[in-house]
Amino acid sequence: MSVLIRNGTVVNADRSFNADIYCEDGRIVAVEPGLAAPLGAEQIDASGCLVMPGGIDPHTHMQLPFMGTVASEDFYSGTAAALAGGTTMIIDFVIPSPGERLLTAYHKWRDWAEKSCADYSFHVAVTWWDDSVYEDMGTLVRDWGVNSFKHFMAYKGAIMADDGVLTQSFPRALELGALPTVHAENGELVDYLQKLLLKKGIVGPEGHPQSRPPKVEGEAAQRVIQIAGILGVPIYLVHNSAIESIDAITEARRRGQRVFGECLAQHLLIDESVYFDKDWGRAAAHVMSPPFRPRAHQEALWEALSGGILQTTATDHCCFCGDQKAMGQDNFARIPNGTAGVEDRMAVLWHHGVNMGRLTANEFVALTSSNAAKIFNIYPRKGVIQVGSDADLVIWDPQLTRVISVENQHQQVDFNVFEGMRVSGGPAYTISRGKVVYAQGTLQAQRGAGEYVFRPAFPAF
Amino acid sequence: MSVLIRNGTVVNADRSFNADIYCEDGRIVAVEPGLAAPLGAEQIDASGCLVMPGGIDPHTHMQLPFMGTVASEDFYSGTAAALAGGTTMIIDFVIPSPGERLLTAYHKWRDWAEKSCADYSFHVAVTWWDDSVYEDMGTLVRDWGVNSFKHFMAYKGAIMADDGVLTQSFPRALELGALPTVHAENGELVDYLQKLLLKKGIVGPEGHPQSRPPKVEGEAAQRVIQIAGILGVPIYLVHNSAIESIDAITEARRRGQRVFGECLAQHLLIDESVYFDKDWGRAAAHVMSPPFRPRAHQEALWEALSGGILQTTATDHCCFCGDQKAMGQDNFARIPNGTAGVEDRMAVLWHHGVNMGRLTANEFVALTSSNAAKIFNIYPRKGVIQVGSDADLVIWDPQLTRVISVENQHQQVDFNVFEGMRVSGGPAYTISRGKVVYAQGTLQAQRGAGEYVFRPAFPAF
Amino acid sequence: MSVLIRNGTVVNADRSFNADIYCEDGRIVAVEPGLAAPLGAEQIDASGCLVMPGGIDPHTHMQLPFMGTVASEDFYSGTAAALAGGTTMIIDFVIPSPGERLLTAYHKWRDWAEKSCADYSFHVAVTWWDDSVYEDMGTLVRDWGVNSFKHFMAYKGAIMADDGVLTQSFPRALELGALPTVHAENGELVDYLQKLLLKKGIVGPEGHPQSRPPKVEGEAAQRVIQIAGILGVPIYLVHNSAIESIDAITEARRRGQRVFGECLAQHLLIDESVYFDKDWGRAAAHVMSPPFRPRAHQEALWEALSGGILQTTATDHCCFCGDQKAMGQDNFARIPNGTAGVEDRMAVLWHHGVNMGRLTANEFVALTSSNAAKIFNIYPRKGVIQVGSDADLVIWDPQLTRVISVENQHQQVDFNVFEGMRVSGGPAYTISRGKVVYAQGTLQAQRGAGEYVFRPAFPAF
Amino acid sequence: MSVLIRNGTVVNADRSFNADIYCEDGRIVAVEPGLAAPLGAEQIDASGCLVMPGGIDPHTHMQLPFMGTVASEDFYSGTAAALAGGTTMIIDFVIPSPGERLLTAYHKWRDWAEKSCADYSFHVAVTWWDDSVYEDMGTLVRDWGVNSFKHFMAYKGAIMADDGVLTQSFPRALELGALPTVHAENGELVDYLQKLLLKKGIVGPEGHPQSRPPKVEGEAAQRVIQIAGILGVPIYLVHNSAIESIDAITEARRRGQRVFGECLAQHLLIDESVYFDKDWGRAAAHVMSPPFRPRAHQEALWEALSGGILQTTATDHCCFCGDQKAMGQDNFARIPNGTAGVEDRMAVLWHHGVNMGRLTANEFVALTSSNAAKIFNIYPRKGVIQVGSDADLVIWDPQLTRVISVENQHQQVDFNVFEGMRVSGGPAYTISRGKVVYAQGTLQAQRGAGEYVFRPAFPAF
Ligand SMILES: [Zn+2]
Ligand SMILES: [Zn+2]
Ligand SMILES: [Zn+2]
Ligand SMILES: [Zn+2]
Ligand SMILES: [Zn+2]
Ligand SMILES: [Zn+2]
Ligand SMILES: [Zn+2]
Ligand SMILES: [Zn+2]
Repeated sequence: MSVLIRNGTVVNADRSFNADIYCEDGRIVAVEPGLAAPLGAEQIDASGCLVMPGGIDPHTHMQLPFMGTVASEDFYSGTAAALAGGTTMIIDFVIPSPGERLLTAYHKWRDWAEKSCADYSFHVAVTWWDDSVYEDMGTLVRDWGVNSFKHFMAYKGAIMADDGVLTQSFPRALELGALPTVHAENGELVDYLQKLLLKKGIVGPEGHPQSRPPKVEGEAAQRVIQIAGILGVPIYLVHNSAIESIDAITEARRRGQRVFGECLAQHLLIDESVYFDKDWGRAAAHVMSPPFRPRAHQEALWEALSGGILQTTATDHCCFCGDQKAMGQDNFARIPNGTAGVEDRMAVLWHHGVNMGRLTANEFVALTSSNAAKIFNIYPRKGVIQVGSDADLVIWDPQLTRVISVENQHQQVDFNVFEGMRVSGGPAYTISRGKVVYAQGTLQAQRGAGEYVFRPAFPAF
Repeated sequence: MSVLIRNGTVVNADRSFNADIYCEDGRIVAVEPGLAAPLGAEQIDASGCLVMPGGIDPHTHMQLPFMGTVASEDFYSGTAAALAGGTTMIIDFVIPSPGERLLTAYHKWRDWAEKSCADYSFHVAVTWWDDSVYEDMGTLVRDWGVNSFKHFMAYKGAIMADDGVLTQSFPRALELGALPTVHAENGELVDYLQKLLLKKGIVGPEGHPQSRPPKVEGEAAQRVIQIAGILGVPIYLVHNSAIESIDAITEARRRGQRVFGECLAQHLLIDESVYFDKDWGRAAAHVMSPPFRPRAHQEALWEALSGGILQTTATDHCCFCGDQKAMGQDNFARIPNGTAGVEDRMAVLWHHGVNMGRLTANEFVALTSSNAAKIFNIYPRKGVIQVGSDADLVIWDPQLTRVISVENQHQQVDFNVFEGMRVSGGPAYTISRGKVVYAQGTLQAQRGAGEYVFRPAFPAF
Repeated sequence: MSVLIRNGTVVNADRSFNADIYCEDGRIVAVEPGLAAPLGAEQIDASGCLVMPGGIDPHTHMQLPFMGTVASEDFYSGTAAALAGGTTMIIDFVIPSPGERLLTAYHKWRDWAEKSCADYSFHVAVTWWDDSVYEDMGTLVRDWGVNSFKHFMAYKGAIMADDGVLTQSFPRALELGALPTVHAENGELVDYLQKLLLKKGIVGPEGHPQSRPPKVEGEAAQRVIQIAGILGVPIYLVHNSAIESIDAITEARRRGQRVFGECLAQHLLIDESVYFDKDWGRAAAHVMSPPFRPRAHQEALWEALSGGILQTTATDHCCFCGDQKAMGQDNFARIPNGTAGVEDRMAVLWHHGVNMGRLTANEFVALTSSNAAKIFNIYPRKGVIQVGSDADLVIWDPQLTRVISVENQHQQVDFNVFEGMRVSGGPAYTISRGKVVYAQGTLQAQRGAGEYVFRPAFPAF
Repeated sequence: MSVLIRNGTVVNADRSFNADIYCEDGRIVAVEPGLAAPLGAEQIDASGCLVMPGGIDPHTHMQLPFMGTVASEDFYSGTAAALAGGTTMIIDFVIPSPGERLLTAYHKWRDWAEKSCADYSFHVAVTWWDDSVYEDMGTLVRDWGVNSFKHFMAYKGAIMADDGVLTQSFPRALELGALPTVHAENGELVDYLQKLLLKKGIVGPEGHPQSRPPKVEGEAAQRVIQIAGILGVPIYLVHNSAIESIDAITEARRRGQRVFGECLAQHLLIDESVYFDKDWGRAAAHVMSPPFRPRAHQEALWEALSGGILQTTATDHCCFCGDQKAMGQDNFARIPNGTAGVEDRMAVLWHHGVNMGRLTANEFVALTSSNAAKIFNIYPRKGVIQVGSDADLVIWDPQLTRVISVENQHQQVDFNVFEGMRVSGGPAYTISRGKVVYAQGTLQAQRGAGEYVFRPAFPAF
């Protein structure tokens, strides 16, 4: 199985140049201008297109059991949708219930993920603490290629990790060369505000953002950064949505701390007004945590991406359909949290980032794949087009136009938060491990073709 | 009983001017140049001196039961020492044990304080929560003139208020028009670090600052400020010692939050090196929380005072003698926390503040009395020299020089953290409620002469 | 001439209390509950009203010769309008032409101001430098009660003071005990951007904000604060309109610098969209410098007022009628800069500040008079209600409602930037130097009744 | 000419791995474990060593005519010293006199540099403005591979570019795809302070830091960043030495601006106390601008390097011997500014960075070569070990120890600011364009072997 991509412009995070790319057996074998086509190689003409590393979405939740239901998108459909959008790898989350062995949960998720069409890997959540957690973290790092552990500072009474758990888990990650990642919201305050709002009779989706204001996120970001700083461990904050978090990360970096920050495509483009939609279903469809914010936060997120304060973009892809969202009809706190995006991330970031002059094409690559690959220590296997790297590529046509809609998406969910958005620039072809899996609008993803990516410990930072 | 002070320069927070001051029955009755002496009035010649409002120390702990012992300084000796230093009022703390009714504790402290020579008032600590606490807060505000409630974010397993308690207590204070005050250190991290250090065999006083680094304070300051911001309540942070806290307060004020900050005289002048003293006793004598910091923090504290980021100065006066400190001989975490200062605060602040050009004399007055009076809502009864105010005054001689020492102090403790410091400027006379209680080196304080100061709710901010 | 105000609530910056106020010969003689009316005293019933110090507007330009015309509001009409709005004192600006002796210009303005109905004083601008300027600054401070000097960092080729002038003038002000004040915009950049825009064919009012973006102000604020810091001189920044300036002031205060900041009522309430009005005249009527800003800046200004980062409110009252504005019909850079506001400042600040919960009534007093009085060293003569102070008062009726309009204003200009704004709360009576000059809608201002206020050097900071 | 490096650990900015490296004709031809040695290839055993990209020093001044004399180090000796320290490329500065054509100056410097032993390139300074400068900038970018232009905000009356020049030059650089670089100090203030100090009789080297305090640098950094922001052009600040500059850069990056920052090895390790050396010669030997700073600034610089706020390290290598420094015997302002460092940068940064735990080895590579290569758009030709890159390498022996001294240095100057510093870690071999030029203590540099590096415009940011 071999593919030759001709006449395109290669765009890496560090530079752009004209070259053909030849892939064989899932790897990139040559990157040079004017390559001759070996016998039997499929040829793709990339004239007028950019050839970029396939996207990495470092934050998805396929078929997640959550809030009394299960996310509608499974690993098969979800990775297929990803490929259709130019994303060739996801990092999903293993989330053990409190009391459940980490290894047990890990294997459960590995089973679920076997049907994936694209490469995948797992962060494992630390939702409780005892000696077995300490042990399992070691096993996961050494034997199973897990180099990041997730901590939820919200969801009190469920999967929340309080300061006691954090101070056990972070030093353990440090000695293993693994990276703690964090969902930063003060769960105690969320709980207080939810009860207060419900008591006042505010039960609709508009209660959701009021129960999780920016300061609730900012407080937790500040706290966990300080805790990590005291314990001397690098840290990665997922889905930063607020100026307050950006301030916290900025200040920490100025003080020399290794703090990394992620931003969701949704938070860059959608504002808080969606929760005040008269249509309950539409409002509820936007319920996710952290919630969408007033507009000023969006501009700050874009700025933080350009300025290098935030390094990665993701989606927190977690799909619940209308009937699932309806579980919270009488109480916003029971609406399953989550929105989709894995298919659309690349296109909306290109359109609003590169087309609008906020990002160069190289910065786009850094923010959609290279930086995630570096932080999660799979670079240069992933995240760059060079000889020896995995042949995960997207051939990007800047002229291609799409109106995003639930009607034309591959995602298994009945809503699209970007509904009606016209974007210019999108994948003409997606190549996963050397195979063309998406070609000019036709998805050719293969169930189970995705492989598990072992991520070694002790990255370069 | 009447006193006429002649020929001095009156220094208030807002301006200086030449005037005589006539006091009768504990109040200031006239402030004008060239006053004639009424019959029988004691006359004091204040030529060459500044006449300022007596100091208010808003943070002392007289005869505090703490860490298995009781502070050596009682309300009598402590207020006498205060008067000798030019301070005419203290605000001490009622600290109920977890489970103890606030009112019960309050009356216990009132009894203890009856022997005070100077005026006094009380903050009451919220160290736990149930409905009785809610009720007692109301009673204390309405019937007993308490307008501030203290919360300890440190001292896990003892008096620590976690985020759950804070989110109950702050809204209650808000509705009562009372001010929450906070000791900001992350108790969870202190506990973790203490255990870690002890496990490593670090048991001496040098372990104290290592278990409470600046970030431990900064984290708690950030957190409580955000919590207060979300709940819409003003807040007062006691004994800020670190750049991190100053940053947090600065940022909050920029965002429009009503956040007030206090600074101790000790933190302004003493650095972390004291904990590395070869003499265990000397090192232990400096153990207090927050601990003394690297030098850069001191300069930042002075800057924050000049720039209006911090508004008050205090001492956290809490005395333990050598034999008490010895309780922690084998474990720094058992050394009773506290240092003395109520007698020296005014002089060291004058010398290092005004003499060194960091503060004007007016700013000195603001920082030693007026601002505390305003924040704790007893202005202009206290904190200013004007007709109708309490006759609490200090006649300050800028020429007076003293070498601070345990040998010449009035404080009831066997150590002075400022030992050997030569300061220029000090009280020639102190007048409390219209009586001369300290005159040219002679203390004439009277047991029980101090009165309890009722502080009304709903201040001007 | 005496007045007794009964049954009101006295509101000072530091507290509120119930008291009657008796004024005689222009001064406050008694402030006590239940005062008996002396023979012949005019009595005012202030039931349901607040009695506050009269407003001080520290930034006006009456009858200013500027950009080839003269402001339409003169000292008589302007101070009358001020009184109608509850403002009893203005500080205007003497602006010498480059080369003109400061003293000459000063006396010219003194002459013009003799017809004022309310008290007034002058900042004097330093628009050029030679030895005579050095000399005149001394004379003005010593003999004429000028304690503040203004510097324009914008208006290149006209009155701009470059860094060379600033480094001469600031040390001179420091040795005289006077305060440098600054209009902070980078004049070089404004000039560059104006030319660039005009070259691109952007000649309408929308070019005005584009030629003076927030960074142009922020840069100058940063620069002048650093220059003042290096030279060790306190500084006052007029009309801060941008987040960037607030950041600069905040940071400086954190570092202990004495930096004061002013904010205009207009910038608090009007945003940039006015420059895109289809009606040229309406758009041009809003041209002033700094220009109105995007909304986020307004919220930041309110926050900076609440948090104590900015201390004063003003109007930069400078009136040009439609025919004067028309001078810039073909070139936005020729539209005379200025808007009115001296009559409306108190009401709009009350309505949007106090009624909206952003400010307490005491903070309102601090921001409309007390702080200006302290900074410009005329406190407690002005800015507070206490015995001995000038009898400049406003009796504020929180129930009084007005729809602001050019139709019902006293300002001599054909436009009102607050047109149509309904505000609750306004002056029932204004008292200037002990005389009732505005009573229940009737203005009784007297030409020439205002007195020049001598402001001594060496304030308390 | 070919070289095979065996058994080393390759350290790039993004990761470390074990591989042999084969170089031929000046390029890297293979990077794989277990390479066989081609016939005739020189073999180097790198066991126990790290193989890293050769250092790039982006800021040197060889044989610079400055302040009435000429730097003692020429392009031959300077690049030889660089190679001895592991640095294989320098970027020097063409500095036209005001009025001199840029192209004329450029060719003069090109002539001087022909004798270089290592690769070199040039920033060209814009020290004045007219149409010819505009033209020459274009020619330099298109025909001569110059992609960066330098601006001095200090040195009033000589090479200073005022705001007027900056606003001409920056937009020109932007349209050419070139990067403006800036020496940020407020020249007006330096001039004022120099004259003030000299007037006070302060003529010795201690006057140097007093005339250029941190705020003088911070102000200029703030200003130029705002100017660049308004004009929409990326910017690079050379030799940041102060917390104030770091703050400015941090804030700009948070706002999304492309701002890059450089830091000198000297500023990381030397503090202000050197100017108070009793020995005039020693004190004067340290005179450079910006001057050395109080210690707190050094820690902040290290933190900014770790946190990604500053991206490059350099030396501003500019050598003047004792007799040259003596020109300022009576006036510190006449001491030729400059210190050496090109030979020692790598070693001191390794020792105090990597050995002290502040940096990982990968971060060291980023900070000594990769980031400079990316910013100045010669990556991956320089700054990384990969197939196709220039064979500029350093084989780093972490065990190698050296006591830095003027006695054992190759630099042509009679002083070393790191004199007596013992460092662990240094170059065992240096390879320049595929030739071994330094081997186990023996320098084999060849006059004129260095080549001029053409740097294309329009980098990836
Ligand atoms: Zn989450
Ligand atoms: Zn998630
Ligand atoms: Zn405490
Ligand atoms: Zn205490
Ligand atoms: Zn102005
Ligand atoms: Zn003005
Ligand atoms: Zn320089
Ligand atoms: Zn240089």
